[in-house]
Formats: sequence, C-alpha cells, structure tokens
Amino acid sequence: MRTAPEVTLGLTVSRQDPRALPRQISDELRHLVATRVLRPGEPLPSSRALAHHLKVSRGTVLAAYDQLLAEGYLRAAGGSRTVVNPALDAAHPAIRVEKTRPKEHRPTPGEAPIDLRPGRPNVDRIAGAQWRAAWRKAAATSFDSAPSDAGLPRLRNAVADHLRRMRGVVRPADQIVITSGGREGLALLLIALAEAGRPLKVGVEDPGFPSLRLVPQRLGAQVMPLTTDDLGLVTDNLPTGEHAPQLIVATPSHQYPLGGSLPIGRRLALLEWAGASSGLIVEDDYDSELRYSSSPLPALASLDHPQEGRVITLGTFAKTVSPGLGVGYLAAAPRVIDRLLAVRADLGQPVSLVAQRAMAEYLDSGELRRHTQRMRHLYRRRRGLVVAAFAGLPGVRVYPMDGGLHAVVEITGAEAPLLAAALRRGVAVSGLSHYWGKATDGRSGIVFGFGGVSDQNLAAGLAVLRSVCAEA
Amino acid sequence: MRTAPEVTLGLTVSRQDPRALPRQISDELRHLVATRVLRPGEPLPSSRALAHHLKVSRGTVLAAYDQLLAEGYLRAAGGSRTVVNPALDAAHPAIRVEKTRPKEHRPTPGEAPIDLRPGRPNVDRIAGAQWRAAWRKAAATSFDSAPSDAGLPRLRNAVADHLRRMRGVVRPADQIVITSGGREGLALLLIALAEAGRPLKVGVEDPGFPSLRLVPQRLGAQVMPLTTDDLGLVTDNLPTGEHAPQLIVATPSHQYPLGGSLPIGRRLALLEWAGASSGLIVEDDYDSELRYSSSPLPALASLDHPQEGRVITLGTFAKTVSPGLGVGYLAAAPRVIDRLLAVRADLGQPVSLVAQRAMAEYLDSGELRRHTQRMRHLYRRRRGLVVAAFAGLPGVRVYPMDGGLHAVVEITGAEAPLLAAALRRGVAVSGLSHYWGKATDGRSGIVFGFGGVSDQNLAAGLAVLRSVCAEA
Repeated sequence: MRTAPEVTLGLTVSRQDPRALPRQISDELRHLVATRVLRPGEPLPSSRALAHHLKVSRGTVLAAYDQLLAEGYLRAAGGSRTVVNPALDAAHPAIRVEKTRPKEHRPTPGEAPIDLRPGRPNVDRIAGAQWRAAWRKAAATSFDSAPSDAGLPRLRNAVADHLRRMRGVVRPADQIVITSGGREGLALLLIALAEAGRPLKVGVEDPGFPSLRLVPQRLGAQVMPLTTDDLGLVTDNLPTGEHAPQLIVATPSHQYPLGGSLPIGRRLALLEWAGASSGLIVEDDYDSELRYSSSPLPALASLDHPQEGRVITLGTFAKTVSPGLGVGYLAAAPRVIDRLLAVRADLGQPVSLVAQRAMAEYLDSGELRRHTQRMRHLYRRRRGLVVAAFAGLPGVRVYPMDGGLHAVVEITGAEAPLLAAALRRGVAVSGLSHYWGKATDGRSGIVFGFGGVSDQNLAAGLAVLRSVCAEA
Repeated sequence: MRTAPEVTLGLTVSRQDPRALPRQISDELRHLVATRVLRPGEPLPSSRALAHHLKVSRGTVLAAYDQLLAEGYLRAAGGSRTVVNPALDAAHPAIRVEKTRPKEHRPTPGEAPIDLRPGRPNVDRIAGAQWRAAWRKAAATSFDSAPSDAGLPRLRNAVADHLRRMRGVVRPADQIVITSGGREGLALLLIALAEAGRPLKVGVEDPGFPSLRLVPQRLGAQVMPLTTDDLGLVTDNLPTGEHAPQLIVATPSHQYPLGGSLPIGRRLALLEWAGASSGLIVEDDYDSELRYSSSPLPALASLDHPQEGRVITLGTFAKTVSPGLGVGYLAAAPRVIDRLLAVRADLGQPVSLVAQRAMAEYLDSGELRRHTQRMRHLYRRRRGLVVAAFAGLPGVRVYPMDGGLHAVVEITGAEAPLLAAALRRGVAVSGLSHYWGKATDGRSGIVFGFGGVSDQNLAAGLAVLRSVCAEA
C-alpha cells in the first residue's frame, strides 16, 4: 500500500530568507515531523525529486537530510531511501496525535446482540450476479463531462418505468428528479418551496416517521402535527385558510407506523383540500412495493391530475435494496419539477454517476423486481412468525400487516419498562410512543423490524419479546 | 429485458360492489389500458397468478380477459400469454402520453462543439484497472445494516491520510464527515450553523466561485461580498462587531478565478479576525492537489489550532476525479463536527455505501495520488499551450497559473461581443465578469478550462480564442 512519496509536502524555501537553504529545508522538515505531518516510518521524497521541486541543487537537499539523519529525525532505509525514524514513535509520546477511532454515533440499543429496530431490510441476497454486473459496467465507463442536475437520463427513464409498473403512476422521465433518498428528496423539496422571511408550514402525520418531522425542522420549517388514526391521516379537520400548511406529508399506502391504508374517501378529501388551499401533498411511498397481502389501493398520485398535479411522489430504494444505497427520486408535475431543478442547479446533484448508472442497469435488467418479489415472500413468511409468536397473549395486540418489514405490537402495560427488559435480554426495539410528535394518544407498545436479521436471531428475538410481553 | 409480469397492478375487486366480479376486473383493466398504465404490447399476469392475487376463481379472471380480447383491448400472444393489443398504439393516439426526452437543462453554450467552460477535469484516464477493481470489490460486499451518518469509517481514515499527505492538515478520522461534494458540504455546514429566526451572514470572495454565493442564498443566508484582489481575499477591512459574518468562505490556496495564493500576512490576519469575531472560516480547497509549479503555502487549516480550530476544510474529489463522482468531505474541529453530525443524523448520509467503499479502496491503493500526478503533468503541459496561444497579442494578459485546470485571459475591449464571437465559431467559454456578485471592478476577459477536452479540441479552441482576441 505504501507508495513512493511524491513531493506534496508543504515545503518552501526563499532566497530572501537569511537562513542558508539547507537550514531552511531541515527546519521545515523537523517541524513536519514534530507536528506529525510526517510520521515515523514514512519515506521522504528522493533528494533528486525534492531538489527539482524546490529548484535547488541536489547537494542542498542532501545536506539537509544529513543534518536530520545526524539528529535522529530521519533514518536511512534500504537502497537510497530515507524515512522518518520509526523510533520516534516511542521517543516522543508527547507529540503523538491520538489515532482515535471514528465515533459510531449510534443510539445505545445498537449494542444489543439482536437489533430489531425497524427500518432495515434484508440485504443478504442483494449482492448477486446481476447486481455486481450492474456496478461493473457502471465503473468501466468514463464520466460524462457534464452530469445532468436532474439525474442521468437513463435512470430517470428507468424510474418512470418502475413507477408505472409497480405503482400505476404515469410520469414521463422529465418529471422525475434523482435524489439520494427519501430524506434528501424531502429536503430538496423544502428548499425549493421556501420563501424568504416566511417559514414554510408543513403538516405531518402524528404518529408518523420521525424523520418526516425532523427534516422540516432542520430546514427551518414549522411542523404541524395532524391527527392520524389506524386508517391513516384524518381528513375531517385539515387546517384551511391562513392556518393551512403549504405542504402535507403523508403515507397513504401504508401508514407508518400504524399500518393503515388510507380509504378512498379520505384520499379524495385530501386531494380536495389541496385544490381548495392551493397546497401540495407529498406521498411518501416508502415501502409500497413490499405489499404482500391483499390488493393495494392505487397510489394517491394516480388519482391526481397529471399536469396540474398537487401530489409529489417521494420515492426511495431504501426498503427494496438498502438505506445505504443512497438512491431515490421525486416525481412531480412540471411546475414543481422546474423549482426542484433550479435548486439542483445551484446545490448540485448528490448522487454519484457510477451509482446512477448501476441503478439504471439494475432496474432495466428486471432484477430489482425479482429481488423485491423474493423479499415479499421472505417478509410474508416472517410476518407469520411474528403473529404466531404473540398468539394467545392476553392484553397484547399485533397490528394487521399487509406489507412492509416492521410490526407494531400494542400492550396494555407501561412501555418503558418493557423496552428496558427486552434490552437487558439483548433485544433492541423501538417504543410505539416514539412516533408521536406531541403526546401519544395513550397507546403503548413496541415497533420492531423483521427484515434485517437472520432467521435464527429473529426467532430468538421473538421469544424474548413474547416473554417480556407476557411478564408485563 | 421484458420479464414475466408480476401482479403489481393496482387492481381491486370488492364483494360489496354491485357489479359482477369479471365485470369489475375488465372495467379496471380497461381503465389501466386507457390511462397507459398498461401499454400496448405489455404482457398481463397469468390468469392463475391474478386469480390467486385477487382471491377469486381462475374462471372469473378468464371471463374478464375474454371480454377484453373480444373488445380488442387484449390479444393472445404465444403460449398462454395475453398482452395489451399492440395495435392500440396507432388506434388511440388521443390517449398517448408523450414519451418526452428528459430536458438537459444546460445553458446554450453546452451546444458548442468545443466546450471550454471551466470546471471539468480530464476524465479520459480515470476508469483504469485500479478504479474498476475498487468498484468491483465495493459492489461484491453486502450492505452494512446500519450505515454511519458521518461516513464509512474506512473512508474517513483514508481521507484523514489524504489530507495529511497532500495538504499537511492533521485531523483524526473522527473530525471528518463524508459529503457528496463541495456544494453539499457547504450546504450541510450552513444548515448546521443556522439559528431559528436569524439569517446566517456569510462572507464570500468577490470575485469568486458563483456556487459559493448561490448555495448560501438558497439556504436563506445573507451573502456579504468581500473585496478580493489578485493575491486573494483582502483582509484589511473585514467586517467586525455586529456587522461581522458568522462565516467567511475563502480559497486561500488558489483564488478562484483570479489564481492568487493568499500571502502569509493575510492568512494570519484572517485567522486573527476569526478569533476576534468568534467567526469561522471555510477553506475551500477545491484544487490544491493540482498545483504543478512552485511550492504551495501550507493549507490555512494547518495554521489553525487543532482543537479550538476555526478553520473548516471543504474538500472534494471533483477536480482530481470528476464532478460526477459525488464524494467529498468536511474536516473540522470537534465542536463543529458535533453539529454537522447532528444534522446528518436527521437528514441522512447522501453518499452510497458502495461509492464510499470504492473511494476508500481507491485512496488506499495509492492510485489517486498517481492519477493526480499524471494529471498535473498533463495540465502543466496544457498550460504551456495556453500561454503560447496568446503570446504577443497586444492588450491581452494571461494570468499566472500555478496549478489547476482553468485559465483567465484579461482583455482591454468589451467582453460580451468577444464571448459571442467565440460561440459563433463553436467555442464556449465563460466571461470574467460572471464571477463578481456585484459589479466587476472594470476588468473584462474570459475564463476557460483546459482539462476536459481532447488535445485536438484544445488546440482548435485556442486558435479560435486567439483569433477573436486579436480582432477585439
């Protein structure tokens, strides 16, 4: 791994400096060693290369090296190589800069042997032959000289096709912007809609995805929690007039976390609200590809007018591939797309062209659909295990699961002691109350994922959860 | 590419519906065809699969298919396959949704045969064996279940090493956050420093990189243009007290576009300003690896106190690899890093884990340093061509170039007619006046890149530029 050193050291000499040239060089090198810019054992440039670089004679450099060899800062290594004396590591502990390990910034439940916190799909089978081929092809091509702010045209086409086939949403490719995922897409939209001096009002489901509250807060928006029940967002009393939010973010296909699918009447009411209030609706379509039982209602976006549309599809491959993929999309009507593209032009497209090419290739090959189908089978089977695990427990209710990769189990007792008991026995889950922005409506329970663990750990984790629920 | 269709259509049937089940299915399918969710030629699910999905008998589905076959919406294809009638394409032009090509959102100079607008490195030789191997390895590994918000630990280590070797900036890996590039890094920093209700004041060089003005503006900050001359930012009259910006963004190594390297006295004055005003300095180190003549001054960050530090390094691989790579970094003292990580935890890490792994592999292999050295040779040679092209022209001044991949040529005449004349002859460049936020200081000229073109196009482009300068 260690390569011949180039002359990239911040060394300078000056004819105006009263010190002799060799002295200038040795002083600077000594400083670089003392401040650990040059580290014990590291090679120095050859005297020839450094002389050429500094525009001094080779003898000047050799004189400086000799001085430092004599002082013990440097040591001759094999051939004509000169390195920083490896013994300095022990000799000068005072100047040592700690090689600290990067902090992992996880919540402590991350330490649990069985991590059932929600949000992680199964990734055991993603890196198959088609996946590797897609990335191999993507990396073998040179970069385009002028990447498009909206995203690679081929990927936008592939996403348009994906949306049409999987969700019944018909958008041409030029109404799609590539994002690095759901949260980045929402942030982009909020920046595009922001107006100077007036904070944006954003309505969110309560309970709901915490990040749908946190992203607007970070971007200075005012978050309005909206009442949400087991069927989804309650549309009876949506704020109108001057109190109306400019934007409502909802999960109509599969409310998070409660699991409801928004009834058609509420869908129409929501669209009506948008028309009457000149508001926009973000349809967070985070896992609707993973529905594995009963027929889904069509996407809210498919009920919208394609040109005048008020529904923006917030899409991601986080649940079908992995949150670490870093590729998602926004699909919207032209008037919204134009504002998104103006922001992209200033802030840049965050997704690597290599990743965009690979994802386009993977989508075009049809392999994502096959992978998704395999995952649906896996998750449906695991749902059976979850339901069975809690069967017959009094005071415990497993919410219906029509898709996705998380489960909600409501209990009658207190939530915090149950979470603590599970964690003591090595199983990390989330508390149901965590999903409310304000106070909960009195429910307590646990939310956990069954995607990103092995069969064995899931079985062990479920046994622990059943046992702590039974004791509670 | 066409695969057997899964049942992902948004079809539903209801026992409460007064219509017979086959009628419900045929009505819905007709609607899907009419709205082009199902397109001419596309296969339908097998009757068996759809029956299973809808929980109806297979005969019910077959009855619906037969009806639509009779109406001409569907057609029997080979085997037992049923497809949407391909003839519908011609028969129903009214319902055709235009398959529009994605807009390319480039400024019109993008149409020029020889595009010398600045900012594009040479990418002909990036996709070599080491590059491909790095991505191959990165794609062959499964995803980590819980990606780190700050970035992959291995990449943060590799960047820390890169900064130390190439720039003399010593930061442990936990003081580095991975970004998707310079603009994304600046945006992240601005979000992290924002305070509710009070717009951030950001000082920028004038003239300077347009995106260093545009990014703060997009994020609601107040941009303060700061006087900048041929040596870089003028530090005599930096605003202090209540008028002081919280942040100054500067390019001390290689001022953009004028090319100066900030003298040591101004560097110290800038650090002093930061201490006295409790301000921060962003050192935009966009191309300092590409310095190819004379020794660089050390990075401003290397003069800063490592723990109490007020200098934030804004780094990118856009100029050494490509703007399309989508990988960069921020390096800062712990108190700034903690704020950046809090934002990352809410907004997410935008860079794909595959890209992070590949970049770590590529850095660790030493290949980026070798590639950068090759590019330095290439750009130095091309600089010679640029200088030669304008030699002896009266009223024309080529600015000194100590590195990088763009040139500034000042002229005495008017700028706009010269740009237009060059574009008419097929060569796109930028105007020097474009880099001032306010009015220019009276200079006019052209700024152009010599990285991202072939030798042949560069020679042809230079001949045109010389000729239009001579005529002006």
